[in-house]
Amino acid sequence: MKVVKFGGSSVADANQLRKVTEIIKADPERKAIVVSAPGKRHSKDTKTTDLLIALGESVQINVKNQVIYDQVIERFASIIRELELDHSILSTIQERIDAACALIKTDLKRGMDSLKSCGEDGTALMLSAYLNKRELESSYVNPKDAGIFVSDQPGGALVLDESFDQLYKLREREGILVIPGFFGYTLEGDLVTFSRGGSDITGSIVAAGMKVDLYENFTDVDSVYCVNPMIVDQPKELKTLTYREMRELSYAGFSVFHDEALIPAFKEKIPVCIKNTNNPSGDGTMIVAELPEREGHVAGIASDSGFLNLYVSKYLMNREVGFGRKLLQILEEEGISFEHAPSGIDDMSVIIRDHQLPQEKEECVKERIMKELDVDTISIERDMGMIMIVGEGMNEAIGIAGKATTAFRDAEVNIDMINQGSSEVSMMFGIKAEDLNRAVQSLYRAFF
Amino acid sequence: MKVVKFGGSSVADANQLRKVTEIIKADPERKAIVVSAPGKRHSKDTKTTDLLIALGESVQINVKNQVIYDQVIERFASIIRELELDHSILSTIQERIDAACALIKTDLKRGMDSLKSCGEDGTALMLSAYLNKRELESSYVNPKDAGIFVSDQPGGALVLDESFDQLYKLREREGILVIPGFFGYTLEGDLVTFSRGGSDITGSIVAAGMKVDLYENFTDVDSVYCVNPMIVDQPKELKTLTYREMRELSYAGFSVFHDEALIPAFKEKIPVCIKNTNNPSGDGTMIVAELPEREGHVAGIASDSGFLNLYVSKYLMNREVGFGRKLLQILEEEGISFEHAPSGIDDMSVIIRDHQLPQEKEECVKERIMKELDVDTISIERDMGMIMIVGEGMNEAIGIAGKATTAFRDAEVNIDMINQGSSEVSMMFGIKAEDLNRAVQSLYRAFF
Repeated sequence: MKVVKFGGSSVADANQLRKVTEIIKADPERKAIVVSAPGKRHSKDTKTTDLLIALGESVQINVKNQVIYDQVIERFASIIRELELDHSILSTIQERIDAACALIKTDLKRGMDSLKSCGEDGTALMLSAYLNKRELESSYVNPKDAGIFVSDQPGGALVLDESFDQLYKLREREGILVIPGFFGYTLEGDLVTFSRGGSDITGSIVAAGMKVDLYENFTDVDSVYCVNPMIVDQPKELKTLTYREMRELSYAGFSVFHDEALIPAFKEKIPVCIKNTNNPSGDGTMIVAELPEREGHVAGIASDSGFLNLYVSKYLMNREVGFGRKLLQILEEEGISFEHAPSGIDDMSVIIRDHQLPQEKEECVKERIMKELDVDTISIERDMGMIMIVGEGMNEAIGIAGKATTAFRDAEVNIDMINQGSSEVSMMFGIKAEDLNRAVQSLYRAFF
Repeated sequence: MKVVKFGGSSVADANQLRKVTEIIKADPERKAIVVSAPGKRHSKDTKTTDLLIALGESVQINVKNQVIYDQVIERFASIIRELELDHSILSTIQERIDAACALIKTDLKRGMDSLKSCGEDGTALMLSAYLNKRELESSYVNPKDAGIFVSDQPGGALVLDESFDQLYKLREREGILVIPGFFGYTLEGDLVTFSRGGSDITGSIVAAGMKVDLYENFTDVDSVYCVNPMIVDQPKELKTLTYREMRELSYAGFSVFHDEALIPAFKEKIPVCIKNTNNPSGDGTMIVAELPEREGHVAGIASDSGFLNLYVSKYLMNREVGFGRKLLQILEEEGISFEHAPSGIDDMSVIIRDHQLPQEKEECVKERIMKELDVDTISIERDMGMIMIVGEGMNEAIGIAGKATTAFRDAEVNIDMINQGSSEVSMMFGIKAEDLNRAVQSLYRAFF
């Protein structure tokens, strides 16, 4: 038995939904189907979810944008027309959108979450109807009905343990089950969405709950590459990766698979296969628990920009019990989540994602740290990039750090920060964001 | 005007005190003299302070060790005999020791601090008497009289700001002032010692308070070497170092100068000169504020063992706001001070000095972290060593990390941890303690 998830580009239009149907048809093991909202049909197109968010923002300020509203409806209407589905489906979708817009006025967060979920929900309704039309017995299953229970964190829900036993019962249902991704329900019955890109999470939760043999994740690339193909031309394809490798790669810019989505699959040791809807006969990339055989120890190189370094120094810092803790507590109180906090003897750096500490908050945070911790100097450096070299067993391999640092030198890139050893499967480098591509290209030459 | 400090080996016996007197005599700028307790006279000898601590420990359990007591008294008696000083000095020293032993029974911490201070105090009494005998006008100045006020942290006092104005007035006193190192007094008048080796701290505080032109620190080596001469044979001598470089080197095993002792001198920008009592005409090593001219960017390589790595992992750790802070808070509550806390995405390491987390405390700390933070795995790896490469401007230099990691590879040493970028003047490597010497030798070959 398999759970299959189709991403936004795989359900972007009627033609893509026909491909999806062929894929489902080709393998009777494909029991539960999780779908995203219709994504981009071409590079200049807008994703349905982005349209829905823009619509919601206009409703918030009481000037509902009718142009956007019409565009959203047309995204669904065009698919329903082309696939010759019953027109009542469009009415159902439209009613849900209208209800969500109304809810925004009384409860902003719940309303926005409801509206954001309409893309996935509509896709599931349409796909289920089309499968039936193509004589594949199928039913739309709402996440509440499926048993996807989540914490009450709008736009960032976490799955509750109660879900998994419920989901296991889906195995007994007749036919193919089509489930919208991206959202679940609180135990009180309110709709809450996962973080953006959360359909991957739904797929993983359903796969774990149903204890299937394989979780297939269909997207628009043939496989996971060892490095971003926008930076290195035609990089090596990865046939196999471990869960840990994939999670670390996702963290720093490997957007092919949602950062958190692996966890449920990992816990149940369900293998994940990344495949291409537009080339379903390709092997794709398998994500598994056991270290695959491979040449060398490095699986991939990820890179991401948008970090900043908050640097403080104070004499005898290392003598002051609780200094590091207090610094992190101030950030916590200011609602700032940090990534890393490497420290020297008399100095400490805190690496933070740019958006966590906007410019306008900078002065206030600096002042609190100055005043409450009596530091000698404090500075914030933005435009930092991170590079992560990922591979199982690299913590045991001699010489990987040497090879990496030599590659940075060859590219004439100064390393601002090295963090190695805290993770068993990765090594992290902080450099100036402008040097990222040059450094990644040099690392690729060194390792592959 | 100069402040001069003489270390334990420089005042170990009568002959050494004669050398000290010649040094003082040679330069009339040498106004204030700070002395340690008599140190080792030969490699198998025991330092007076170690004898005093052992004596105190026997008193604590009500079985005063008379053999040790007699040895302590004889250390002073032999010097007084040889230098033909007034016998009343021995009585004064003996009375102080007896009083401290008595105090231990009613107030353990105050008594131990008093007893530990008797070595420095006795040396100051003897040296002052000897200088007068040699017709160098001099007086013994007790730290309370001098104005060395400290926080009430027995065995780990910190100087209070009030001290510096008081100390400035010492400039006006007649003759040479001989001050015992290692201890001060609380504002309430109780004697409290600095951390071990704290005579360097006294010297630095007095130099800063008196705003002298130079702080001379006499020890038993000709200069600071770029690497531990026990590990590398006849390493390069360092003519000049910056304060920051010296502080970072001291932290990881450069025992020539006390880790914290530089701060007062640094704050007043008073240059420090490390010289050899047994070769006073040598240049020694100057420690200054400005970056000296030198070949390459690396000043020295320090190494130290006795660290452990507390490693925890938990899925989605980086999503959990406050995780790092909570972990550090548990350690703080358990009275454990940490050195570094590098983190990955789902894991965090905390580097701790071995003695901070004794074996018997391990289970309890592990259990608290397990229970309160619900982590997936937790482990403690002992026998970790640290290597620090130190040099001004190395954070701007491309290729130093590459050179270093290549040297580790050449020595076939696996790097467990790299921490670079948090300090502007150092790069830190965690390796197995057993690999330390091999790695340092290889790094020395690479950089010098």
